[in-house]
Amino acid sequence: MGALRLPSLTSIFTVSSSARSSLFPRRRSSSQLVFAKATEVAESKQKLPPVVQEQGGITPRSQDFNAWYLDVISMAELADYGPVRGTMVIRPYGYAIWEAIQDYLNIKFKETGHSNMYFPQFIPYSFIEKEASHVEGFSPELALVTVGGGKELEEKLVVRPTSETIVNHMFTQWIQSYRDLPLMINQWANVTRWEMRTKPFIRTLEFLWQEGHTAHATLEEAEKEAMQMIDVYTKFAYEQAAIPVIPGRKSRVETFAGADRTYTIEAMMGDRKALQAGTSHNLGQNFSRAFGTQFADENGQRQHVWQTSWAISTRFVGGIIMTHGDDAGLMLPPRLASVQVVIVPIWKKANEKNEVLDAALSVKDVLHGSGIKVKLDDSDQRTPGWKFNFWEMKGVPLRIEIGPRDVSSGSVVISRRDIPGKPGKVFGISMEPSVLVPYIKEKLDEIQSSLLDKAIAFRDSNIVDVSSYDELKEAISQGKWARGPWVGSDEDELKVKEETGATIRCFPFDQPQGPKKCLMTGSPADEVAIFAKSY
Amino acid sequence: MGALRLPSLTSIFTVSSSARSSLFPRRRSSSQLVFAKATEVAESKQKLPPVVQEQGGITPRSQDFNAWYLDVISMAELADYGPVRGTMVIRPYGYAIWEAIQDYLNIKFKETGHSNMYFPQFIPYSFIEKEASHVEGFSPELALVTVGGGKELEEKLVVRPTSETIVNHMFTQWIQSYRDLPLMINQWANVTRWEMRTKPFIRTLEFLWQEGHTAHATLEEAEKEAMQMIDVYTKFAYEQAAIPVIPGRKSRVETFAGADRTYTIEAMMGDRKALQAGTSHNLGQNFSRAFGTQFADENGQRQHVWQTSWAISTRFVGGIIMTHGDDAGLMLPPRLASVQVVIVPIWKKANEKNEVLDAALSVKDVLHGSGIKVKLDDSDQRTPGWKFNFWEMKGVPLRIEIGPRDVSSGSVVISRRDIPGKPGKVFGISMEPSVLVPYIKEKLDEIQSSLLDKAIAFRDSNIVDVSSYDELKEAISQGKWARGPWVGSDEDELKVKEETGATIRCFPFDQPQGPKKCLMTGSPADEVAIFAKSY
Repeated sequence: MGALRLPSLTSIFTVSSSARSSLFPRRRSSSQLVFAKATEVAESKQKLPPVVQEQGGITPRSQDFNAWYLDVISMAELADYGPVRGTMVIRPYGYAIWEAIQDYLNIKFKETGHSNMYFPQFIPYSFIEKEASHVEGFSPELALVTVGGGKELEEKLVVRPTSETIVNHMFTQWIQSYRDLPLMINQWANVTRWEMRTKPFIRTLEFLWQEGHTAHATLEEAEKEAMQMIDVYTKFAYEQAAIPVIPGRKSRVETFAGADRTYTIEAMMGDRKALQAGTSHNLGQNFSRAFGTQFADENGQRQHVWQTSWAISTRFVGGIIMTHGDDAGLMLPPRLASVQVVIVPIWKKANEKNEVLDAALSVKDVLHGSGIKVKLDDSDQRTPGWKFNFWEMKGVPLRIEIGPRDVSSGSVVISRRDIPGKPGKVFGISMEPSVLVPYIKEKLDEIQSSLLDKAIAFRDSNIVDVSSYDELKEAISQGKWARGPWVGSDEDELKVKEETGATIRCFPFDQPQGPKKCLMTGSPADEVAIFAKSY
Repeated sequence: MGALRLPSLTSIFTVSSSARSSLFPRRRSSSQLVFAKATEVAESKQKLPPVVQEQGGITPRSQDFNAWYLDVISMAELADYGPVRGTMVIRPYGYAIWEAIQDYLNIKFKETGHSNMYFPQFIPYSFIEKEASHVEGFSPELALVTVGGGKELEEKLVVRPTSETIVNHMFTQWIQSYRDLPLMINQWANVTRWEMRTKPFIRTLEFLWQEGHTAHATLEEAEKEAMQMIDVYTKFAYEQAAIPVIPGRKSRVETFAGADRTYTIEAMMGDRKALQAGTSHNLGQNFSRAFGTQFADENGQRQHVWQTSWAISTRFVGGIIMTHGDDAGLMLPPRLASVQVVIVPIWKKANEKNEVLDAALSVKDVLHGSGIKVKLDDSDQRTPGWKFNFWEMKGVPLRIEIGPRDVSSGSVVISRRDIPGKPGKVFGISMEPSVLVPYIKEKLDEIQSSLLDKAIAFRDSNIVDVSSYDELKEAISQGKWARGPWVGSDEDELKVKEETGATIRCFPFDQPQGPKKCLMTGSPADEVAIFAKSY
């Protein structure tokens, strides 16, 4: 890490990977990723190492993507394992990314007419059974409360895996007539799914999410809402997270348990596996029929409401890590970074310290006053070199160095996290606020665009247009995504999964023109589908 | 409701209380408040009535405080019962109060050096058993997950009732030396306590809260932190919620299970019962000794950390309702109101409608642009009179009426929610922005202060200084709070509780000067305590 552009610091990161492995025995091989199954509670502390210890670095991404991912999470202090198998503690630096996601989406949800509220997490087991495909989809993943207040409960309670059932139970009480529609709500909550194979952020026993739930008078309105929300997610992914997701419709096989249609945004991770990063469901009348959620229309006729639900979770944080990170660690898009600029003061002699710190503090105040999220790392327990690496690993978009010579020349040195080596370093930018502030803002915007452009280029160079099953298999075996015309059956789709490990990620909204033939059956096809291996 | 100041609308609310009772059979007598115990899941829908139906109103506060409280919650659309006994659905208008609390406290927590993060809610049962008084305090209230993914778990999991145990488990991994201290974090989360007697917002099976957790190198630092946070809560209560809480220290009997000292803010509700509205605990080394949370001090010696924890919950929303509400419904302090000003346009003839709505919209835009939270109720399905009552019940601080005559005179009519009758109504304030905006802001500030002043006067007129147990009994029997010198034993305190129903709410920080004698034992006493019945 950092060896190419900071040769003087190489020694910090030269301990070989194998030597490091013995230091961090709990985080290495992929078999350890699946937390111990033998016992639900890992009694021994799963201790992750202190960040950027002198003896350790990050596994190179190219060498072992999964180990790299876990290293970044650990060393950038994003999360730790919880004591119960498959659970995760989200540490402040990781939680700040989630807070930035919340801040943005909360505004968009309110702008589009949704109100936040809160439903209880304990759901009577009988509720889950009411919608047939829902119970089939979720029952293997449920956590059940069977004891409360020292007594066995008469009916066991489900710890919510999602809230459609309890939402409908309440909607029946709030919806009487068409005047009560549309009813559009959202909640930020924790949910529990008893996953067997877990991975921090991507798939954990408990995770945080928002779940929107709406009820409408017509199918058309529900469809419009489901599409509107996948559009909100798409814009969020592109504009805030710099992740060029592909929005589209899920196949029947991959549709949410209880939905008529599921829309999705699919992101390509750095290892070219797909990540389902957000979904929006047109639930039709499935839940309203199961729960009797009805309204009187303008003619006084009782009708079942048409519904949607949509969600984004802490999984998205994993998507950000795996989209932008490199061998130096995390790389955060400026718009979601809790620290956009870090200032590292540099002094050698004691008499330089005060003037350097004074200048650094004044630069900090100027940037902070302009709404830039800035941190001054003025600790004297670490060397500047250590700090450079530390904040690079934390993915801070811009670094400002200020040394004695900078103070006397009234300038600062700026480095971009996303450009490795000297070209990323700009010497002698004036620390005069009228020059510095617009410069920093411009650079943050440039980094935001540049991360997106890079991710688009990576995505597009790894999607192959295929017209036959052989071509599909070839693309998948190369680790790429395959895009091709598809009208295959559910069985055909499952065959692809079995034989290649790839699933239909979506039928993208963006479709090529012209006549098409199904890559599997040769029949005329209306749409192309995208196939990929996925998380 | 509203009969005194809006005589023309009286007819809406004249159905007698007994007639109404039969319409809302599920929400009346206090015995129904304790949700059915026979079954954990109330299968039949506990349907609360649509708001302000023509046939219903709010039980007068003086007649039945508890029924009044439930009516306000129902009719102002703050919350509803969940399907599982003792759970609550927080509806958008109630949740918005919680969001306002979060917004304020989040800033204060960050200003005082705390970071948000998230711990898993499932805690191994063995963790709870590690701290002796903690398990004693919490084990009767636990909800246990015993089945996950279709299998009986080897170790049952506790759904967090509070997080000190799992926090310490993680702190042992993050704290190595004095350089890692202080460690100061907070989380916003749901918690579960299997309460037998529940009441919306005040005591529910699951509730939302923030819980702060800190670790320090010295007892003094921990004590300072615990005091700092009770001070943050006190300021919040006074300045934002207009609730004149009394901050103080809990008696040994009332101290948190696992704490050395518990500080509290105690609020007097409209029925003069006390509400513990927030607590801050100095945990000493109780949890750090139980979990081995140690650090190496500057001399390399291993020491146990000193800790605090502190919390405010959705209970506070109940405190706001019961402090300020009146027979017309909820009354929100402007600083926590999601709607500070409601605009009700009034027209009779069709040709008046457009010009009235145009004027209303332009007033709305002006206020909104000045950062005032304003709502325009332009529905034409309800009469202005209905809207007046509706928004009064929702506790909106200011109402603006705009009719055709107002439009022609360029003025509006303003009514204060907190002043009943004509004196609260101001005719003919110019709708010119440079006049209107400062006027509205001034009125909102006046209402904020006025609510606090009124609550202080109510509180102070209901606290009696007592110097003997007889005087204490007399005060409590009158429904008041008793304040008197106390050095009684734990047994004396329990005797008071048994004989009067009152407990020591706190030893207030604000203590009278001069020598004192314990009201119970006659021994010299250093402090007065406050006794009251409580929620």
